[in-house]
Order: sequence, then structure tokens, then C-alpha cells
Amino acid sequence: MLESTMQDAPLSIRSVFDYGRRVFANSQVITFEGEGCRKASFAEVGARAEKLAAALQKLGVRPGDRVGTFQWNNQEHLEAYFAVPCMGAVLHTLNIRLFPEQLAYVINHAEDDVILVDASLVPLLAKVVDDLEKRPTFILVGEGDASALGEVLHYEELLAAESGGFDWPEIEERQAAAMCYTSGTTGNPKGVVYSHRSSVLHAMAATSMATFGLSQVDRALMIVPMFHANAWGLPHATWQAGADIILPEKFLQAEPLCRLIAEEKPTFSGAVPTVWNDILRYAENNPVDLSSLRMVVCGGSAVPRSLMEALDEKHGVRMIQAWGMTETSPLAAVAHPPRGADSSNEMDWRTRTGRLSAGVEMRIVDDEGKVLPWDGESVGEIQVRGPWITGSYYKDPSDDKFQDGWLRTGDVAHVDALGFIQITDRAKDVIKSGGEWISSVELENEIMAHPDVVEAAVVGVPDERWDERPMACVVLAEGSSASLNDLFEFLAARVAKWWLPERWTFIDEVPKTSVGKFDKKVLRAQHEKGELKVEAAG
Amino acid sequence: MLESTMQDAPLSIRSVFDYGRRVFANSQVITFEGEGCRKASFAEVGARAEKLAAALQKLGVRPGDRVGTFQWNNQEHLEAYFAVPCMGAVLHTLNIRLFPEQLAYVINHAEDDVILVDASLVPLLAKVVDDLEKRPTFILVGEGDASALGEVLHYEELLAAESGGFDWPEIEERQAAAMCYTSGTTGNPKGVVYSHRSSVLHAMAATSMATFGLSQVDRALMIVPMFHANAWGLPHATWQAGADIILPEKFLQAEPLCRLIAEEKPTFSGAVPTVWNDILRYAENNPVDLSSLRMVVCGGSAVPRSLMEALDEKHGVRMIQAWGMTETSPLAAVAHPPRGADSSNEMDWRTRTGRLSAGVEMRIVDDEGKVLPWDGESVGEIQVRGPWITGSYYKDPSDDKFQDGWLRTGDVAHVDALGFIQITDRAKDVIKSGGEWISSVELENEIMAHPDVVEAAVVGVPDERWDERPMACVVLAEGSSASLNDLFEFLAARVAKWWLPERWTFIDEVPKTSVGKFDKKVLRAQHEKGELKVEAAG
Repeated sequence: MLESTMQDAPLSIRSVFDYGRRVFANSQVITFEGEGCRKASFAEVGARAEKLAAALQKLGVRPGDRVGTFQWNNQEHLEAYFAVPCMGAVLHTLNIRLFPEQLAYVINHAEDDVILVDASLVPLLAKVVDDLEKRPTFILVGEGDASALGEVLHYEELLAAESGGFDWPEIEERQAAAMCYTSGTTGNPKGVVYSHRSSVLHAMAATSMATFGLSQVDRALMIVPMFHANAWGLPHATWQAGADIILPEKFLQAEPLCRLIAEEKPTFSGAVPTVWNDILRYAENNPVDLSSLRMVVCGGSAVPRSLMEALDEKHGVRMIQAWGMTETSPLAAVAHPPRGADSSNEMDWRTRTGRLSAGVEMRIVDDEGKVLPWDGESVGEIQVRGPWITGSYYKDPSDDKFQDGWLRTGDVAHVDALGFIQITDRAKDVIKSGGEWISSVELENEIMAHPDVVEAAVVGVPDERWDERPMACVVLAEGSSASLNDLFEFLAARVAKWWLPERWTFIDEVPKTSVGKFDKKVLRAQHEKGELKVEAAG
Repeated sequence: MLESTMQDAPLSIRSVFDYGRRVFANSQVITFEGEGCRKASFAEVGARAEKLAAALQKLGVRPGDRVGTFQWNNQEHLEAYFAVPCMGAVLHTLNIRLFPEQLAYVINHAEDDVILVDASLVPLLAKVVDDLEKRPTFILVGEGDASALGEVLHYEELLAAESGGFDWPEIEERQAAAMCYTSGTTGNPKGVVYSHRSSVLHAMAATSMATFGLSQVDRALMIVPMFHANAWGLPHATWQAGADIILPEKFLQAEPLCRLIAEEKPTFSGAVPTVWNDILRYAENNPVDLSSLRMVVCGGSAVPRSLMEALDEKHGVRMIQAWGMTETSPLAAVAHPPRGADSSNEMDWRTRTGRLSAGVEMRIVDDEGKVLPWDGESVGEIQVRGPWITGSYYKDPSDDKFQDGWLRTGDVAHVDALGFIQITDRAKDVIKSGGEWISSVELENEIMAHPDVVEAAVVGVPDERWDERPMACVVLAEGSSASLNDLFEFLAARVAKWWLPERWTFIDEVPKTSVGKFDKKVLRAQHEKGELKVEAAG
């Protein structure tokens, strides 16, 4: 085989770090403080990250060691995002919304040596401190009472003791850079370990026009948490692109977010649908100005068409749906309409789950393991592979999650000839009625299009005649007078007759997992125990 | 060291190929035929490339073998761009403008087993056929008399004999994918061998907003030859992005190019300054419509400000300068203005050589090997490194071209704090007057800004008092009445007094290398032999 003459330069987060802090020295990192913001240039953040690396090394952190973060989206968290991987250690972003037993599990499983913790999050972390097998060194970020954690070091004191300069080690591109645990609804969380290589490739992919198109003229409001799948890779991508980075800290409610948007005028943002739903509802009674946003990426769960339409029509904000998961770094598909789409049909494209991104290979596979065609009809599990897709879990066999080198995503979908994916269900939420599949996701979207419905979850429940039938669990808006019959008639006009649920129940809230996804397992269990008041319709 | 859990998927041109032909099946490859165009979809081109691979395999082409192309920019050349690397062989793009002795040298040196040749180029290739150490298999593309080459196979017949389907081999990402020889002004051409890895990374970089921002809504007119540094990587980048690809074949004069632009409405194009100069001059007396172009990338030699201004003002076309070379794949810097630039100063930024691109590391080094600061003043040789930068030449030691793992580019420049490069000279063209450097490139640009000047080259000539002084070699426009004094006064208003050349000569044409760059070595030799009529000024 003929070898190339190309240099064997490793793909390393350090290259991204060095490039951004030098070439985009003047770009800004802006952290919201509720009233006003604190700001630092990329050059300043870069210098502080260098001091953090030096301080961590003095604390004994060595290449391969895990450094946990228990932090909001803020400047110090970003500093750790670069300092820890570039010194050869592994950034372990801890999900602050995990249930305590899960949190203790992941800290113990990853064997974190150090944990950076925001002062405002000390009470949450303190809940698990007695369950840790090995006591990490805690570094307190910000001011506050940390006595519940025992002895702590102070972030700013550590940095102040450093004079700058750090002898960065050589990086091998396949070595671990960061890790993140998935929070499945069943079993223990599973760790995904990103490499320098996968992180750099993902950052390159995220600056492409086919995905987020980030550039130095952007100001990116990063609402998606930095503890959740690398905040969709945005920290690396924005830094490399030179986009200003706007971090909302703990101020994630509609009112402060709208103030932040009006003040700092982001051009780009990323968040789950719930956030934008809240903002839309807030905007109904308050003046808001979202006009600076050229593009908003939404993912994490299916995005209702009604949400996209309302943002478009009322606020001129273009929302683009994207799909991925912790295991896919997460970028795997983005629903930009294809060429030739026009205003009459582009919403039909934007409401798809996404179009397969370059760099990711995909197939859909049926129950028997047969690969299905991309015909827009055949429904099977999505399987993916590629350089930023995980091939295993950290110290966890989980062989059933992989098939012939492909990751089984657990999402069930059809794909059209041009790579547009439409997810119809999670594999475990699939409803099979009389041998035919009914999409719970599509039913939910159609029910949520009703103006009086805040949330709706559809689950499969046992049925004597059809084996399984959909049951609709609906949260009505406060003060709504919509009747069951109203909703049924509304839905009957929008989906096939045999899809229409005969069973309906009104609930106060859809149960959620620790990362805010619908937890249908809870609904199915409640139904099984007879805890839900089910009404008949149709 | 902790290993990541990421899949070990190779970066392979095959992934780019498979992605484009499937997800962008409907995008088009458009080849100009002088009158009208022939068109094929990415799906069709993909199927034909698959047949080409099968046919080449039957001819005995094995992984690692070199397949040469002696072709214009056309659909068949693009088919070879994918078929050859994806079957594990090495695409060797032959420069049709090489002098015959150089052409014979590179074919012999690369040991090409097969050469695809366009019918219209048979006479050029025939000149070297007797000098080849091993007779390659010639495959004729298109119709024409190929008897001068002896026995040839026919491209369409080979494809017609295939029924489709090919068992593509596994690719290792560091294996050779393509090769291209540089045509230096001294010594034999040197081969650069691109890998699958470098090609894929380069394609990703070229779809970023910070570079070309190519996407599926683009139609890319590829004027830069596909035998020249991979046509700036555009074949892979456009294919991956799903942009339509418009190929001008041999119709590279201003008149047919303007017709092609008016008919096919490209949004993007790439070409050397000469092409755009010709188009501008043509447009002075003919109606042209360039308004479809959102961006034109220009490189290969310094772009005069006057050219960029004229394109902007007269045609609304935004030209962006880029810098690179065969050895850098070639993308290394692109002169997008920084944030905050406005209409009053953005041309000052766009006339820089370029801003360092993400993924490439750069330093400037003085004669003693000392690394200089990025202060916008210190002048030294640009050295680069990174995953798509060559680390050696094919079967050629050339150790003097590398220093501590960095490629010495031979370009002399200063760099400002934000990574904006301004090339002042080729290292071998540097003018040192009384110990101080004078930029020949800047002098040339200022002289060429005079409306009566078509081309100008400035070379250093021996001077008793100052050791070396600049001499201006000027090509006047036909019918111009500008005097030497006019030009001198014009220049005196634009550069420092001590830079002003005392020696001027009017010539019919600036001598060029085989790739169209100014060949100053020839001018210096002519001056030495007293062949130039030198006039005194000042």
C-alpha cells in the first residue's frame, strides 16, 4: 500500500483551543448573572484555562485522570472544557439533574479525582457526598457556603496562585478527552468517552453550513446544558469559529432568558423544545424581542410543528430540528429543507427529525436484523456508525446496544431517499396494534397542536382485540375548557381513523426523566396499577 | 492513558462519495460544451464512477497503483476523482500545462499504470509518449483521433461493458488517495501524496463558514483546474455539501465563461486572478451578468486590490482571497474580514493574503531560524503544519523544505495578532536594499493599480550602493500612452520614497511558469544578459 506524504498531525482539542484564543482573541465569553453579564475575551479565558491546568497538575491530576464538573453553563465551566482535555486528563461533565443515586453511581463509576462545583449547586452535590467510594478534591467555583462538602479548595485562589504558562503534553488523538453518562430510563447510567479525534471532527462538522453554520459573526446563546452531550458540541465549535459565547448560568426561565436575548442579541441558540415553549407562552403576555436570532437549533425530543410555526410567525425566528444523542457526540442529523423547498412546503421538511449529516453512516433495521430501504415508508431501528459515534460504553459490556459495529440508537424511524429521517418512536415505546405500528410521537405532536394542550404523551396499553392500543395522556392549559370530545374531534381530522386512541386521561404533568424527556414507563406503570382515570372516546 | 469509547471509523473519500451520491442524489454535475451543457445527477455520476472502478480493476489496477488523468475539468475527470481513490488506487492528476520534459518526468517518477486522456489533449500527451520508461494503458475520454498515442482503450466502451456494482475495499485513512506534483521554477517537479484522511479533513474544512461555506444551495463553478492542487479541494467539498458542480472544460476564455455564468448562474467560483482580469476587460465592451455569484475565491498569486474593487463596484461580485499551495492541500488561509469590519475598511482586510484557517498551525521564522511575533511588522518565512500539510515529497528527500516538522512554504510574510497574513514576497524573490526588505509583491500591486497597466513584475537587481534595488517590469495596455514619468508619479504617491524603483523596463508579457505564475528568475536572467531595455526614473 502506498503511504501518503501528509504530516501525521494528531487531531487534538489543544489545536482548537490554541487557534481560538489566538486568532479570535477578541471574541467574547459572556456569562449571565441575572442582572447584567460578566464578560471575558477568548484571550482572557484562554489564559485562565492555562492557569487552571497548572493548578490541577499541582493537585496531582495526571493524564487519564477524571476531573468532574458540577456546573451551570458559565465561563469557568468553559475554562474546564479546554484545560482538562488539553492537559491530557478527562473532563467528566456531571448532570446536575440526575437523581442522587444515579449521581453517586456515575462519580463512583468514573472514579473522579477532582470535582469543580458551582457554589449554587453545593446543596445538590452534598446529597451524595456520603455515598462516594473515594472522596474527590472539591474545587468551589464562586462564593458560597460549601461546608456541606467538607473541606474545599477555591477556584479563584487556585488560579491566583498561578503566574501563567503551562507545559502542555503531546496528545494522541484517540486518547480520552471527555466523558458523559447517558441517563436511560432503565438500568444504571452508561458512560460514553469522547476522544480528542472525535471532538475535533465534531467541531468541524458543526461549523459546516449543512449543520449550524457557525462563524465569527455569530453570537451563540448556549442554553443546552454543558453537562448534556457536550452542549451539542457547541463549546468547541463556537470557539473554533470565533463566535461569541453567551452562557445563561442558572437563569433558564423564560423571563430572564428573554431579557438576556434582548440585551445580548444572540444570533444563534440551541435548546430543547420545553425552553422555547416556555418562551412562547411568556411572550403572549410580555413584550419580547427575539429578532436577533438567525437560527435556533432544537432537539432532545420531537419538536411540535405548532412550536416551529409560532416562532416563525410571531417572532420571525427560524427553528431547525436536529437529532442525536450522547452516544453520537451528538450531531447526526439536521433538518435543513432540501434545495427546491419553498415557503409552501419547507415547514414539512423542517418538522422532520433531521437529514443525515456528512460523516455519519446510517441504516434502518427491522426486528429480524434485515436492513430496510430508504423509501420513506419502511420503519425500523436507526443504526449509525462513524468517527464520532461510540462503539462501546465505559466499563460496561452492553453488547445488545451494538450490532456488527453499528450503534443501535433505540429510535425507530423511516428514512426517505434523500436521507431525511422521521422518528416515529423510541423502540421501547412502539405501539403495535393488530400487527401494525402506530407512531406515538406523531399522535403526540398532533394532540399538542391543539391550542389548549400543554403536553401530551401517548403510550401503548394492552387491548384484548388489538393486542395493544394507544392511550393519550393529556395536560390541559390552566383554565382551559376543552372537553375530551373537543380533543378527539380535533385529532380525528388529523390522523388515520385506526390510529385514534379510545382511551384518554387528563394528568397534571407528564412524568419526566432526569434530563427532561417523557418517561412513558412511569405512565404505563401507573396505568397498570389503575392509578390513572381513563375515559373512553370515539 | 484512558482510551475513548469512540468507534475507530477511518476517514475515507469513500464516505464522502457514498454520502453525496445518496443524500444529494439529485444535485447536478454540469459540463460545458461551448454551446450548451451536458448534465448528470450525482446519482448518475456515482453509478458511472462505480463502473469505472470495476473497469480499472479488470485492467489490472490494484490498491496503491497510480492512475493518471490528463483532463480538463469535466464530468469524467470527476468520476475518476472518486473511482480511483475509493478502489484504493492513487489518482495522479497530470498538469496539462507542464513543459514536455516535466510531464515525462512526473509520469515516469510516479510510474503511472493507466492514464485517462481527454481527446482534445491527445496532441499534448503524444509529445511525451516516446519518453515514457513504461508505457501506461491509455484510456481515451471523448471522441477523436488518438493514433499518436498508439493503441488506446475507450472510456465509454469500458463503462458500457460494466453492469454496475463493485466490491469496494476497506480503506486505511493514511493510505495514499491522490498525488500532485508541484512545478517549481527550479529543479524537477516534486510529488505530494494526499491521504484519504487529509482529503476528508480538507473537505470538512472547505464547507465551513470560515472558508468557502459551501452548501446544497450553491452552484459551484470550478474554474481552477482539477489538475492543480485538487482544484483547491472543491471536488470533494462540493460533493459532500451537495452543491451543483459546474465544469467549464476547455472553454476558459472570458467570452465563453461569461456565457456559462449567465446560463447556469453559479453562486460560487474559484480561479486565479488572470481569469477575473480577463473577464473584467471583456466586460468593458460586452454585456455580462455575474450577479448570481455570491462569492468568488481567488488565489494562486497575489490579488490586486484594483481587481477586487472593480468586481465589487461594477458587478457586485464579492471576491475573497485565499492562500495555499499544492503542499497544503491547499487550504491554509482565507481573507474574510474580521467581525467589526465595515464598508469603510473591509477592503483593507480582503486584500490581505488570508487569515489562518482552523486546523492549520503557522509560524513565521527569520533567516536565523528564530520564530517571530505576530505583530503585523516582523517579516519572515511562513512555516505551517497540520493534518493536511505535506511532511515530505514522494521519493525525494528535499530536506531543506522542512524544519523541525514544519513545512517551509517559501513565502515571506508578516502576520498580525489576529492571524491575518500579508505575503510580501517569495523567499527567492526577496529584495534587500541597504539591509532593509522591500516587498516586490506590494510594489507590483501598486503599479498594477494604474489603469493603463496590464501586468507588472518587480525583481531585485544588483546595485553598487544599496547592494540590491527593485526594478519594475511593466506591461502596458494596448494603445496606452502612459509615460514612464506618469507611472513613477503614480507610484510615488502610494509607497515609501526609498521603495521607488530607479530602473524601469517595458515588456510585452511577464514570463510565466507552467502554472501561470510570474517567473522572475527569467526576468533576472534577461536583465543580467542585458536583454532588457532599462530606463531610469526618479
